[in-house]
Amino acid sequence: MLTIYGVYRSRASRNLWLANEIGLEFRHVPVIQADRLPDPAAPGAPLHSRSAEYLRINPNGRIPAIDDDGLVLAESLAINLYLAKKYGGTLGPADLAEDGLMTSWALWAATEAEPFTLQVLYHMAALPAAERDAGKAAAAVAALAAPFAVLDAALAGSGWLVGGRFTVADINTAEVIRYAQPASALFAAAPRVKAWLAACQSRPAYKAMMAARDQEA
Amino acid sequence: MLTIYGVYRSRASRNLWLANEIGLEFRHVPVIQADRLPDPAAPGAPLHSRSAEYLRINPNGRIPAIDDDGLVLAESLAINLYLAKKYGGTLGPADLAEDGLMTSWALWAATEAEPFTLQVLYHMAALPAAERDAGKAAAAVAALAAPFAVLDAALAGSGWLVGGRFTVADINTAEVIRYAQPASALFAAAPRVKAWLAACQSRPAYKAMMAARDQEA
Repeated sequence: MLTIYGVYRSRASRNLWLANEIGLEFRHVPVIQADRLPDPAAPGAPLHSRSAEYLRINPNGRIPAIDDDGLVLAESLAINLYLAKKYGGTLGPADLAEDGLMTSWALWAATEAEPFTLQVLYHMAALPAAERDAGKAAAAVAALAAPFAVLDAALAGSGWLVGGRFTVADINTAEVIRYAQPASALFAAAPRVKAWLAACQSRPAYKAMMAARDQEA
Repeated sequence: MLTIYGVYRSRASRNLWLANEIGLEFRHVPVIQADRLPDPAAPGAPLHSRSAEYLRINPNGRIPAIDDDGLVLAESLAINLYLAKKYGGTLGPADLAEDGLMTSWALWAATEAEPFTLQVLYHMAALPAAERDAGKAAAAVAALAAPFAVLDAALAGSGWLVGGRFTVADINTAEVIRYAQPASALFAAAPRVKAWLAACQSRPAYKAMMAARDQEA
């Protein structure tokens, strides 16, 4: 039995999308990020990422995490690589070379892109207008020019990142790049990235994830 | 044939240490980080990470990268996971569960630890004294208290991170944690981390890597 911990409005979206792609059955425990709650310690507060109960699952106090028949795993991108290898068929690697490339894209997304795509999300969309910092947004957009160019070039072959087909590498990377969508200039300058993200987000499994996300309280 | 691109004084150290552990033969191309050169564009400048020649290998302009019989791979932690799986025997995962845990530790190290361990390194050791910022050092040390506690707890079982034995997960994580060694208070508060890092760094393959690093021009 697979359990996915983490609300849709979190990095758990990556795992929930992948589970939809595979058609995996799972139990969903909508753990919320503690910093989204005004008072996580209040009686009756919903299950959150810094609760004693959840810290036993992920001592880092981060969502998502999974429990797959007793294997507890954290780090959303690693969870997806694991689930794709175990259950995902052609979404996972066909051999060690593809495994290496898919793992490399996960680390690329986490280190070269996500610190900046998150800044775009916060300062161009997610934060209340009064808390947004135009300077931080501009710096993040500037920092993303080079990674977007690398990603655009990588998509020049088949339009997908690894193996000439849609894989977990596309899901992982697309979910990190999604945070930069408020910065439309980045996508105008990288037309293959724009087309690839649109193709990823047109998949029924992505749409089902987003529909469930929109339903979330 | 395996080629490792990147000087010892870079994240290539991770790959060079692992290659030593396995006894892998490799060609070493000591590409230097462009920002370490006063003028990377000067005639006669050594091969650097933003040279046209190297950008054909890693368009991100980062070291390290490898070429293993034609498979070109970037991201030091992903490279190590790949090499361990392909050539590393018990350094690599025994099954998909260990593979998931080792990949999770790589993403943990890159996102929860490295942004802060690098700040410790820069502002407590690597930068010239006049350029160090005590406030940044203190903030990084404070941010590392939680990840060090998580790491300390993870080592409580066998003293190693995955599978009750020394693996690529220890090499990857130890190399990221090494950057924080100037902050001795962190290690005093996490005695298992201190003992584990000492055990990792007492290995002949690590010492051989550091000896070659010390020889580097």
